[in-house]
Amino acid sequence: MIIIGGTATNGIDENLSKITSIPLIKVEHKIFPDGESYIRIPQHITNQEILVVQSLYPPQDKHFVELLLILETLADMKNNKITAIIPYLAYARQDRRFKEGEALSIKTILGAISRAGADALIVIEPHKAEELSYFGKEVKIADPIPEIAKEIKKKVENPFVLAPDRGALERAKRLAEELNAEYSYIEKERDRDTGEVRIKNLPELKVKGKDVIIIDDIISTGGTMIQAAKAAYEFGARKVISAAVHSLFLENAYEKMVNGGIREIITTNTIPQDPSKVTIIDVAPSIARKL
Amino acid sequence: MIIIGGTATNGIDENLSKITSIPLIKVEHKIFPDGESYIRIPQHITNQEILVVQSLYPPQDKHFVELLLILETLADMKNNKITAIIPYLAYARQDRRFKEGEALSIKTILGAISRAGADALIVIEPHKAEELSYFGKEVKIADPIPEIAKEIKKKVENPFVLAPDRGALERAKRLAEELNAEYSYIEKERDRDTGEVRIKNLPELKVKGKDVIIIDDIISTGGTMIQAAKAAYEFGARKVISAAVHSLFLENAYEKMVNGGIREIITTNTIPQDPSKVTIIDVAPSIARKL
Repeated sequence: MIIIGGTATNGIDENLSKITSIPLIKVEHKIFPDGESYIRIPQHITNQEILVVQSLYPPQDKHFVELLLILETLADMKNNKITAIIPYLAYARQDRRFKEGEALSIKTILGAISRAGADALIVIEPHKAEELSYFGKEVKIADPIPEIAKEIKKKVENPFVLAPDRGALERAKRLAEELNAEYSYIEKERDRDTGEVRIKNLPELKVKGKDVIIIDDIISTGGTMIQAAKAAYEFGARKVISAAVHSLFLENAYEKMVNGGIREIITTNTIPQDPSKVTIIDVAPSIARKL
Repeated sequence: MIIIGGTATNGIDENLSKITSIPLIKVEHKIFPDGESYIRIPQHITNQEILVVQSLYPPQDKHFVELLLILETLADMKNNKITAIIPYLAYARQDRRFKEGEALSIKTILGAISRAGADALIVIEPHKAEELSYFGKEVKIADPIPEIAKEIKKKVENPFVLAPDRGALERAKRLAEELNAEYSYIEKERDRDTGEVRIKNLPELKVKGKDVIIIDDIISTGGTMIQAAKAAYEFGARKVISAAVHSLFLENAYEKMVNGGIREIITTNTIPQDPSKVTIIDVAPSIARKL
C-alpha cells in the first residue's frame, strides 16, 4: 500500500503516513505560465493499492482537475485499487436541484472522479452522506468527532451541545455522547423570496450557566454559527464554542464570529487554517480508522 | 437544434446563432462566495440536438468544470445528441508523456468531457489532430484559415508564408494556397538540458522584399514567432505579420513581438483579445461549415 500526496493535502498525507507507516510519495507538480497544471508521479507504481490524498479546498476547480490527472495517471500504470481520500469535498452543497435545470454539481464532480480511476472514496464528514452514492462505488465517511471531542474536553466545564439546524442533529448527538453532555437543536427556516435564514419557533434551551458547543459540518460566512450563539446567550449560556469540521471563513466570518461572542473556534485541517486564530484538529487519525 | 452558450464563449455562441439562425440559449451562472460555480439551463430542453459552446481559455480549470456541469445537466434532460464546441482546447499541449509518470492531461480532459455527456466534439485547430482521438467519439476540426487568409490579403502585397516549425507546415501550406503564395518552414530543436528552443540549420529563405506571414496554432510567450521573424528579416523580408489561431500572449508576449519587428498580429476570438492591439477574426463561420 502506498500513499500518494496530491497538490492540496495540507499535511494530511504526511500525518497519515506517520500514523499508519504506509510509505508516502508526493506528486511532482507545477503550474505553466498559462495556468495549466502539470502532474507527474515520480516513480513507476504498478499492481499496488494506492491511497491518493487530495483535498478540494479553494481553488476547488484547479484541485479537482489535478485530482483527475493524478487518478488517471495511476490508473494508466495498472494499479490494483485506487482510493481517493478527499478530506474536504467541494461542490457537496450542490446536491439537489432546487430549481429545474440546475446542475447537480456534486453528481458531476463525483462521477468524474470515479470515471478517472478511483475505485473507492473516503471523505471527512460530507454535507450529506446520501450524496456520496453518486460516486457509484465503495464509499467511507471518516469521522473526526472523537478527536474534536477530546480537544473540547480541555476547554469546557459543563458542556451542552447545540446543533444549529435539524440536519446537524445526528452529528451533535455523536459529539454529546463523547462529552457525556445534553444536546438540542435550533430549527431554521429559509425565506423563499430573500433566501435569508431565520430561527423558527425557538424552544427553550436549557443552557443556563453552561458551556455551549455549536457543532456543524461547515462554516462558510459564519451566519449560522452567530445566530445559534446569540440564541445560546439569550438562554444564559456561560460561553459559546464553535466546532465545525470544515471552515472556509468567507467574508470576514472569523471576525464576525469573534464579535458575535464565540470564544473558541475548533476546526480541522481539511482546509488550511491560521493556527493563531483557531484550534486545528488533524483528520489523519479518523482516516486511518477507515483503512 | 439549439445552441447553448456557456460561461466562456467570447461572443462565438452569438455569432454562430446569427450565421446559422439556430436559436441560442445562454446558461445562467454565478460564482458562490467560496469560489464554486453554479450553472443552470434556464429552459427545459429535451429530445433536441444541442450545440454547447464553451471555450477553455484561462482560467481553464474553472471553464472546464463549468463545461462538465453544462453537459451533464443537458444529458440528464435526455437530449438526443450533444456536441461540445470548444474553440480553444486547454491542456492540448500535454499530449505526450515526455517523462515516465507524467499525466497525459489532454486524455483526462477529453475523457471527462466525453463521459459527462458530449456525443461529439468540434475544436478549432487543435495542437495536434491525433490527440482528439482521446475523446473516443465523433470529432471535427474547424478551420478558420480561409477567414484569416481573407484578412491577410488586405494587408500584404507580395506574400510568403512561413511555418515556425515543421509541425506547422501543413497549416502554412493551407494558408499559402489561399494566398496563392510560396511557403517554407524553419526547423527547430529543443536543448534537452535547458529546454531552450533554437533554430536548427536554417536553409535560405527566399523572402527578399516579401511580406512574410508566420502562421502557428498558438502564441504563448511569443518566443517562436520572434525567432522566426528575426530569421525572415535576416533574409530580407519587407515586413513580418504574425498569424496564430489561438493567442495567449503570456509574459508580455505582445510587447516583445512588437519590439521584435512584427508589424501586424492577426488572431481569432477563441481567446478574448484586445481589439486595439490585434486584428480579431471570428471563428463562428468555420464552426458553421462543420455543422
